[in-house]
Amino acid sequence: MTVLLGVAFTLLTLGSCWGHQPDRLDQEPELAFQPSKYGSLWPLPQKVQISEVSFKLSSSSFRITDAKESAAGPSCSLLQQAYRRYFEYIFGDVKTQNVNKGSRKGPAELLELQVWITSPDSECDGYPTVSSDESYELSVDQPVSVLKAPKVWGALHGLETFSQLVYEDEYGAKSINATSVSDFPRFAHRGILLDSSRHFLPIKVILSNLETMAMHKFNVFHWHIVDDPSFPYLSRTFPDLSRKGAYHPYTHVYTPTDVKMVIEFARLRGIRVVSEFDTPGHTQSWGKGQPDLLTPCYAGSKPSGTFGPVNPILNSTYTFMRQFFKEVSTVFPDAYVHLGGDEVDFTCWKSNPDIQKFMEQQGFGQDYRKLESFYIQKLLDIVTATNKGYIIWQEVFDNGVKLKPDTVVHVWISSSANSEMSNVTASGYTTILSAPWYLDYISTGQDWQKYYKVEPLSFNGTEKQKNLVIGGEACLWGEYVDATNLTPRLWPRASAVAERLWSAKEVTDITDAYSRLSVHRCRLVQRGVPAQPLSPSFCPHEYKGV
Amino acid sequence: MTVLLGVAFTLLTLGSCWGHQPDRLDQEPELAFQPSKYGSLWPLPQKVQISEVSFKLSSSSFRITDAKESAAGPSCSLLQQAYRRYFEYIFGDVKTQNVNKGSRKGPAELLELQVWITSPDSECDGYPTVSSDESYELSVDQPVSVLKAPKVWGALHGLETFSQLVYEDEYGAKSINATSVSDFPRFAHRGILLDSSRHFLPIKVILSNLETMAMHKFNVFHWHIVDDPSFPYLSRTFPDLSRKGAYHPYTHVYTPTDVKMVIEFARLRGIRVVSEFDTPGHTQSWGKGQPDLLTPCYAGSKPSGTFGPVNPILNSTYTFMRQFFKEVSTVFPDAYVHLGGDEVDFTCWKSNPDIQKFMEQQGFGQDYRKLESFYIQKLLDIVTATNKGYIIWQEVFDNGVKLKPDTVVHVWISSSANSEMSNVTASGYTTILSAPWYLDYISTGQDWQKYYKVEPLSFNGTEKQKNLVIGGEACLWGEYVDATNLTPRLWPRASAVAERLWSAKEVTDITDAYSRLSVHRCRLVQRGVPAQPLSPSFCPHEYKGV
Repeated sequence: MTVLLGVAFTLLTLGSCWGHQPDRLDQEPELAFQPSKYGSLWPLPQKVQISEVSFKLSSSSFRITDAKESAAGPSCSLLQQAYRRYFEYIFGDVKTQNVNKGSRKGPAELLELQVWITSPDSECDGYPTVSSDESYELSVDQPVSVLKAPKVWGALHGLETFSQLVYEDEYGAKSINATSVSDFPRFAHRGILLDSSRHFLPIKVILSNLETMAMHKFNVFHWHIVDDPSFPYLSRTFPDLSRKGAYHPYTHVYTPTDVKMVIEFARLRGIRVVSEFDTPGHTQSWGKGQPDLLTPCYAGSKPSGTFGPVNPILNSTYTFMRQFFKEVSTVFPDAYVHLGGDEVDFTCWKSNPDIQKFMEQQGFGQDYRKLESFYIQKLLDIVTATNKGYIIWQEVFDNGVKLKPDTVVHVWISSSANSEMSNVTASGYTTILSAPWYLDYISTGQDWQKYYKVEPLSFNGTEKQKNLVIGGEACLWGEYVDATNLTPRLWPRASAVAERLWSAKEVTDITDAYSRLSVHRCRLVQRGVPAQPLSPSFCPHEYKGV
Repeated sequence: MTVLLGVAFTLLTLGSCWGHQPDRLDQEPELAFQPSKYGSLWPLPQKVQISEVSFKLSSSSFRITDAKESAAGPSCSLLQQAYRRYFEYIFGDVKTQNVNKGSRKGPAELLELQVWITSPDSECDGYPTVSSDESYELSVDQPVSVLKAPKVWGALHGLETFSQLVYEDEYGAKSINATSVSDFPRFAHRGILLDSSRHFLPIKVILSNLETMAMHKFNVFHWHIVDDPSFPYLSRTFPDLSRKGAYHPYTHVYTPTDVKMVIEFARLRGIRVVSEFDTPGHTQSWGKGQPDLLTPCYAGSKPSGTFGPVNPILNSTYTFMRQFFKEVSTVFPDAYVHLGGDEVDFTCWKSNPDIQKFMEQQGFGQDYRKLESFYIQKLLDIVTATNKGYIIWQEVFDNGVKLKPDTVVHVWISSSANSEMSNVTASGYTTILSAPWYLDYISTGQDWQKYYKVEPLSFNGTEKQKNLVIGGEACLWGEYVDATNLTPRLWPRASAVAERLWSAKEVTDITDAYSRLSVHRCRLVQRGVPAQPLSPSFCPHEYKGV
């Protein structure tokens, strides 16, 4: 039996009170808030059963503990840290709680959440991967609730779900209803792309974004770390790359320690860090610290002084790439590296007489896509030799480059996304979808609805093809985004993508989503995340930090 | 002789490095940063002459003082507070400065800025008005600079200009060039509208916005304080209005003390607070605490239980309005109150049999605009009796309501803005323009350029008509805006409007504007205002607070 939850989450939203806006562009319908039977769960678990029976939680007595049978004990600091984190989310920043300690335990109090890792290998000290088991089962019952998961990754998700089940009753008492949840992700790859090249993102911004990602069960941080405008990655092998290519060699770089910190912070939250080093285009900043790496462009018969994509005809290019990606492969533990490969402009290559000669020698005619493929082919071989898999933007596939069977093709061009998904999967490659989720495009209104209504498997294809879609990513490119506006611009818009990638295909009720998301957004604000509002409304606990 | 200023304001912007965006919607051209000969002045003064001679400023010796001849002395706390504020803007939060104190004074050091109020009445303890003299003259020279202004209002603007002339040389030393400025605003009314009804805005957000407005020489805070969704204004006369109509009667209200604080904080920065109490539409929240104020809507022959605009046929309505606006007239010292009058939906009035009967009695036929005018006419008389002037949204004029000659008509409908400006001014009314400056409409890209390119006097009309345009306002309606995202969404987009309303008509060079605005935006960030970026770039002092 399910009941309405979250009486304290009263949200006033007046759909009919939009003011003074003759040119309103909203294509999205205005939605009325009505409490969801699923409370504020976001993303919605695969199976959830919430009963009418409710318990209280006291910060002085409630504990999250390892189940006796668990494969992970006190030595698993990933879990121990998570217990502390979720205790704080649930109770706020409680410092002392010795008032009447222990004297108020009653039959309706929940005392303990036991976390039970059921597989012999908890993976506590490992890194999450695309094939990690993220499932969990949660039974909220009195006096002890149990969270069972084969691996720590599922336990992390279960803790988030547990924390989302806690609400305040009308007197402000922390409460939770007897509930059973059985949950697992629909897609294995659920990512956020941030771009630290167009604007440098301070480590603090990256970490707090990882924290928010974990609240949404996102599990991939796609770190588009360098690009044309700046090269903030401090390479041990080629320190000149950031020394000359970063916005500032000291204040606007990611040191090896920074990168390590990001990776570990992410790991502790079940998040993979997939770095992207995009070549041969998008490399203007590389050229500053690595002479001869980029193609000299010509104006007539003379070099113009400007540079184009990576120079694909020099041996030194591949020597450099071999050393560089060897370093990358050790710095970033993830099994995949994103190699970019998008938007290569051929103008400069075409202007260069040496390139022209090379084209002739190779018999490429005037087809510069063949030259691009020549480069990418060699790069893929280099990366393969480091024992990494790779993700590439769709152009690499489109241009017919020979790819390893386990290559992941990243689909981003929205005008042709469906046919591209068909083609890529028909060719047997796994794919991730970003085309409908370019969150740097902003517009007035509730655009989260647009993101929410995407069905990633709506393209034409067989069941086998659909199985090759391993997930997607919301992309927040950095042209107009930096530390000043990143968080409210990303959340809760990316929250819509989180549910689409985690929850069952059938979870498409936009009214129910709106109600859960409205309360979820208030929870984000309460946890210190300045997530922007969905509509005219207020939160019971907002603005404490403002 | 003018020279390039601000060597320390090095900004890297790569216009050609936009990444990965097949559907880019930018209509705005990409601009290349090149230092402006006007440094980072924003808005650009009417006349400015910057020489090559530069001086240093030391926090241990530089002082802002009252000129001996000044009409305002140490008792003018408005100025004394401003001196402290601008000293901090210039030097940062300097606490102790006793290292080698006094030993480094050299011929190239600027020791003093003297502020000289030239008119016998400085207006130090008054409120700014639409006819305040805001002009000033600034002469930066050694050893003493002089800022002359007839009134404190001009002195405030001059202090901002002085602070904008200070830059860091390549060694980080505070520097300023010998400069002469003669400045005054093109338009008298330069406003920002914030909406505290659709989302409650904490006082802190309002105050920090006033601070940022002062950095732009904005001089009107149009406080759209109540509307359909909530009534946060705590009325002493009718406390039920906020007790029942606010989102929360304690946490989401503006108490009399709050309102006073906002008004005084604004006054100290030369900013008027014009409150808007919009009727007869946009009043759903009023109805909760004031029974019988709103029109009961009918479904067939029975009241439907919902309510429409203010009920214009009851005497009690006007009794209420008389008392309410009497209070408003004492709480808000400004000579004007904004009475709204926009977007009245006639559906409910049409459904109500008592209204129908009244229409018949009055001989209004089926023209409900006549009923609206009937109401507004009475309201205007009520407000006139409180000795206030009024501003109304354009519909009131469009519907032919008889207006006092000094009424200000606020033009907001963008599709017909030019003809409306023509019509309003042809009828002899003063007007303010907001139609092109609805900043709640967002889109990807540099939309500040669109706001910047507006010429408020481009409508057809005589010189006399043009003189009736007293200014404009940038409006940030609150549907999708609250404390989480207000500041980066408003700034620096509203900065474009600030320059359009202050600077000379001829100041239209978009490339120069881009260069000055880029550095100005970095200054905002350095002053603690999270103004969002214009393009891929970085600031030398960014992210300290993040």
